[in-house]
Amino acid sequence: MPLTPEQLEEIEAQRAASAETRRPTVPELEEILYQPLAVLDHGFVRVVDYMGDDGAIVQAARVSYGKGTKRVSEDRGLINYLMRHRHTTPFEMCEIKYHVKLPIFVARQWIRHRTANVNEYSARYSILDNEFYIPAPEDLGVQSRSNRQGRGQSLEGEEARRVLHLLREDAEKVYGDYTEMLNEDDAGAPIDPERQGLSRELARMNLTLNFYTQWYWKIDLLNLFHFLSLRADDHAQHEIRAYAEVMIETVKRWVPLAADAFAQYRMGGANLSATGLEVVKRLIGGEDVGQEESGLSKREWRELMETLGRQG
Amino acid sequence: MPLTPEQLEEIEAQRAASAETRRPTVPELEEILYQPLAVLDHGFVRVVDYMGDDGAIVQAARVSYGKGTKRVSEDRGLINYLMRHRHTTPFEMCEIKYHVKLPIFVARQWIRHRTANVNEYSARYSILDNEFYIPAPEDLGVQSRSNRQGRGQSLEGEEARRVLHLLREDAEKVYGDYTEMLNEDDAGAPIDPERQGLSRELARMNLTLNFYTQWYWKIDLLNLFHFLSLRADDHAQHEIRAYAEVMIETVKRWVPLAADAFAQYRMGGANLSATGLEVVKRLIGGEDVGQEESGLSKREWRELMETLGRQG
Amino acid sequence: MPLTPEQLEEIEAQRAASAETRRPTVPELEEILYQPLAVLDHGFVRVVDYMGDDGAIVQAARVSYGKGTKRVSEDRGLINYLMRHRHTTPFEMCEIKYHVKLPIFVARQWIRHRTANVNEYSARYSILDNEFYIPAPEDLGVQSRSNRQGRGQSLEGEEARRVLHLLREDAEKVYGDYTEMLNEDDAGAPIDPERQGLSRELARMNLTLNFYTQWYWKIDLLNLFHFLSLRADDHAQHEIRAYAEVMIETVKRWVPLAADAFAQYRMGGANLSATGLEVVKRLIGGEDVGQEESGLSKREWRELMETLGRQG
Amino acid sequence: MPLTPEQLEEIEAQRAASAETRRPTVPELEEILYQPLAVLDHGFVRVVDYMGDDGAIVQAARVSYGKGTKRVSEDRGLINYLMRHRHTTPFEMCEIKYHVKLPIFVARQWIRHRTANVNEYSARYSILDNEFYIPAPEDLGVQSRSNRQGRGQSLEGEEARRVLHLLREDAEKVYGDYTEMLNEDDAGAPIDPERQGLSRELARMNLTLNFYTQWYWKIDLLNLFHFLSLRADDHAQHEIRAYAEVMIETVKRWVPLAADAFAQYRMGGANLSATGLEVVKRLIGGEDVGQEESGLSKREWRELMETLGRQG
Repeated sequence: MPLTPEQLEEIEAQRAASAETRRPTVPELEEILYQPLAVLDHGFVRVVDYMGDDGAIVQAARVSYGKGTKRVSEDRGLINYLMRHRHTTPFEMCEIKYHVKLPIFVARQWIRHRTANVNEYSARYSILDNEFYIPAPEDLGVQSRSNRQGRGQSLEGEEARRVLHLLREDAEKVYGDYTEMLNEDDAGAPIDPERQGLSRELARMNLTLNFYTQWYWKIDLLNLFHFLSLRADDHAQHEIRAYAEVMIETVKRWVPLAADAFAQYRMGGANLSATGLEVVKRLIGGEDVGQEESGLSKREWRELMETLGRQG
Repeated sequence: MPLTPEQLEEIEAQRAASAETRRPTVPELEEILYQPLAVLDHGFVRVVDYMGDDGAIVQAARVSYGKGTKRVSEDRGLINYLMRHRHTTPFEMCEIKYHVKLPIFVARQWIRHRTANVNEYSARYSILDNEFYIPAPEDLGVQSRSNRQGRGQSLEGEEARRVLHLLREDAEKVYGDYTEMLNEDDAGAPIDPERQGLSRELARMNLTLNFYTQWYWKIDLLNLFHFLSLRADDHAQHEIRAYAEVMIETVKRWVPLAADAFAQYRMGGANLSATGLEVVKRLIGGEDVGQEESGLSKREWRELMETLGRQG
Repeated sequence: MPLTPEQLEEIEAQRAASAETRRPTVPELEEILYQPLAVLDHGFVRVVDYMGDDGAIVQAARVSYGKGTKRVSEDRGLINYLMRHRHTTPFEMCEIKYHVKLPIFVARQWIRHRTANVNEYSARYSILDNEFYIPAPEDLGVQSRSNRQGRGQSLEGEEARRVLHLLREDAEKVYGDYTEMLNEDDAGAPIDPERQGLSRELARMNLTLNFYTQWYWKIDLLNLFHFLSLRADDHAQHEIRAYAEVMIETVKRWVPLAADAFAQYRMGGANLSATGLEVVKRLIGGEDVGQEESGLSKREWRELMETLGRQG
Repeated sequence: MPLTPEQLEEIEAQRAASAETRRPTVPELEEILYQPLAVLDHGFVRVVDYMGDDGAIVQAARVSYGKGTKRVSEDRGLINYLMRHRHTTPFEMCEIKYHVKLPIFVARQWIRHRTANVNEYSARYSILDNEFYIPAPEDLGVQSRSNRQGRGQSLEGEEARRVLHLLREDAEKVYGDYTEMLNEDDAGAPIDPERQGLSRELARMNLTLNFYTQWYWKIDLLNLFHFLSLRADDHAQHEIRAYAEVMIETVKRWVPLAADAFAQYRMGGANLSATGLEVVKRLIGGEDVGQEESGLSKREWRELMETLGRQG
């Protein structure tokens, strides 16, 4: 993630500024505020603003549940209770803003989450930089035949080299032609004064989906947890998961109690179906249940056995 | 708006706290942070947190429009441009959180705005205080016969006194019976140990809609402007408008450039229909247009003439 | 639920109309279309329109997952898979519209779900009818001392009679005074021509929260399931649960496969925390685990034992 | 827009089906239901389902405004009133579902509208077809120097030919390499049995942004109007505007009264700022106002003069 001198300077200026505030402040998060955290080969995540802390969740819960919550002696217990019982609105009282640089195909997955505020760099108005994502060789997953979405092992040897070569060659070719069609230099002046240049909004269509874009992305903690539970999951594509994992680290700094509750009740737990729960009860009762008499399909049975750490 | 000593103490503690932050900070807003601003007879609005400032709007616009925005020499011009052309997403980058105390019938109008985060005091879990809204005599509007929603002039003399008497008498009666049904004192102990007491979630149904509730309400600036444009409008009910007007003052402290743009392009302007625009063009051209040949209905004609400050 | 002759006539007219359509149609749901299904003493739920069916969910999933879904041999299996793996967007392709009559305090809980479209009868413009909710004697729950939100057993004998008397008396008093303040008869003419009448938008504040209101409420199936999972739950207040249960019956008619999947994977199942899952594994392995060494709090332990149908 | 025989057959089957329904039905829209309406070189828009009609808007307004709306003698007047006064919720009672085939760069603009339900064809699970957008020669806009976003005149002659050649050449090259990396034939079998093939979720990143994707897109009428007002506007990019214009035609068939109101009060009208309104008043009064003394910036002045059809 090579930043330009101009960008480094701007970040330094942001980090150097400091002011007094009466708002809740989280020193652990302030420590890394504005710093780019590297993701993939050219991407990053930066926390650029935040509102609220663990205390804001507790405060909102206490206004909702009133005197009732006084019985819960401490904040951790209350936050765990809220997460466990899906009393979700207090988590909406915290808000965070990220600056993210990411490949377009990752941005396309990310934007499905509609409950965030977004301002993306526009290739309609500006020229995209010549930066594209090339996976590390160990991330060149083979198409799995059994599972349509995951990657199995990685390509190796000559086939891996060939793929990396094609990705790079095509990205370079399309960017070169993008520039030629635009006929604009960095300062916006025509390269070839004899030609006019295609409009930016059209020329961008020639770029491949591994080119990097960037955006500001602002979201409340509840919806961020929802995003992370899907995108830091095993089934998520490796590339977006890389972003989610870095973001989880920022959340741990920001709201450590809520982050623990999220790990305990969302990421680390399990959902059982009605029939799955019956199977679990019978297993605990010492019964020897098999798939056929379980009422579960083969696939569900396999998933349940995985959840329970048993061989199906 | 008489606050309890306990509340005053909590507010003083919030205001006394101070910390260093790298985040954008707005001293004008910090000045009144946490302070209750009185509305109606027992209500208030308090700003309890915020994220971003005018600079955050500009920053988001510059990432979206890229180099293009460098031509706009200063922040005010850019913010005006965004507001005028309904480039709305940069305004979503600012967020504010209020603590509001308000009558239930006002809360019912307010909650129609679905794009905010809310944590309301729950009468299911806690007992509501004996506080209810009684309009000032000059606000006892008469039902307008021509306009089904507005109030015309106010009730006067004996009729006004009678209305105020009924409102007060009924609120006191229902609250007394609410307490009797609950059979709970302030500490949650039974008043009459021989009786059991109705559950809170049921007893609350006996309260009238002028009783006060309270909530935390968090919203981004774009949606706040939308809320304010409807609720600070002439057609809004006096009581919710009283809240909106106090909130506009807090917005002026927070994001003065955006607040000016809002006043200029939203609150103070006018929307013309296609036909209305044609009438305006003809009037400017010196034509003597009347309603009949305008293509507008009588009502639309009257509204247009009002907008133009002319006699219909 | 006594309907006026005018209402009955309107419903009959709606039911009598019939047209040819190329859209997916669900005869089971058409059967009850427009019919008021009684809830509480004066309330109802009516399905007044719908879009899509089980097939629309399948269709949307197949466009998303493409050829991959061809392996799933039939619709039921695919819908179960989507529900189990929280692939939620295909469920958004179905939409339903209800007409609901409900007490205001129920409406206040209901409206917290922000992902629906709502048009409520406005007491600002119109006069509310003299209809209020009085619980059945067996629903007069006592305030639970251990659990702040539920109701325990019911009030009995004299205390129950006293509560019913107070609720009724107060509702009648406030409605009488509402009418007096309005000074309007059914036709909108002054009752007492000497007086002016308070505006409707103000007079309504004198009504208690058990008065009935009504609205059109439109929502997609995904968000409806979310609403129902919270409002048909044991922890939901009896009154809103009564509505949710009637609505579940309408969903069974509409999208039977999705309704089954909802029952199997949402309503009937269980969520285990990370630590709870460890306890389950140890129990299945035949270990004798107790609360102290489980890593769970006493409350979590009790909840887990309840889920597993065991004595703690 | 060449459809495959398989697609044509599916559409024919959808169109041939017919059922009785009690729901509001719109014959004008039924006529074109499921039919692909061509947009750009390979794209289309198909209406595949709808809920509600003009009457549903009126019905919702009447429940909201109650007896008050009886004064408005007819539906057209009421719908115009709602649109003019931004009483927006009744328009949310209508819902429409489209099937759209569109280039990825258009999809990226489109998806910014977060208030719709979307199921997109996933290149993670399936292989994209070899279809990409090549603009018609007359749509090869030159980058405007004065206005960063619009296109001015079009490229001509050799330069146009060169751009078309590059776009086509690059799309073909990246698709060929995509296929090679995938190493899958149409049936999912390996082309070269010696190689493994890169996973689909990775290979797709090699495609350019002009490749076509498709989705189901479902939205309520209010939000559709908002989408159309932005995307059928002069400032919208030609390609997305082509879709918006076709969709407006479907809306005219579906809800003709609301479509007229939209044309009259949204698309065809004008917003004046506070200062702009003052200028209009002075002009009507016969004053000779110029930019300098208007209080408007040069840009605002020019925009106002354009709106008023005057030379600045």
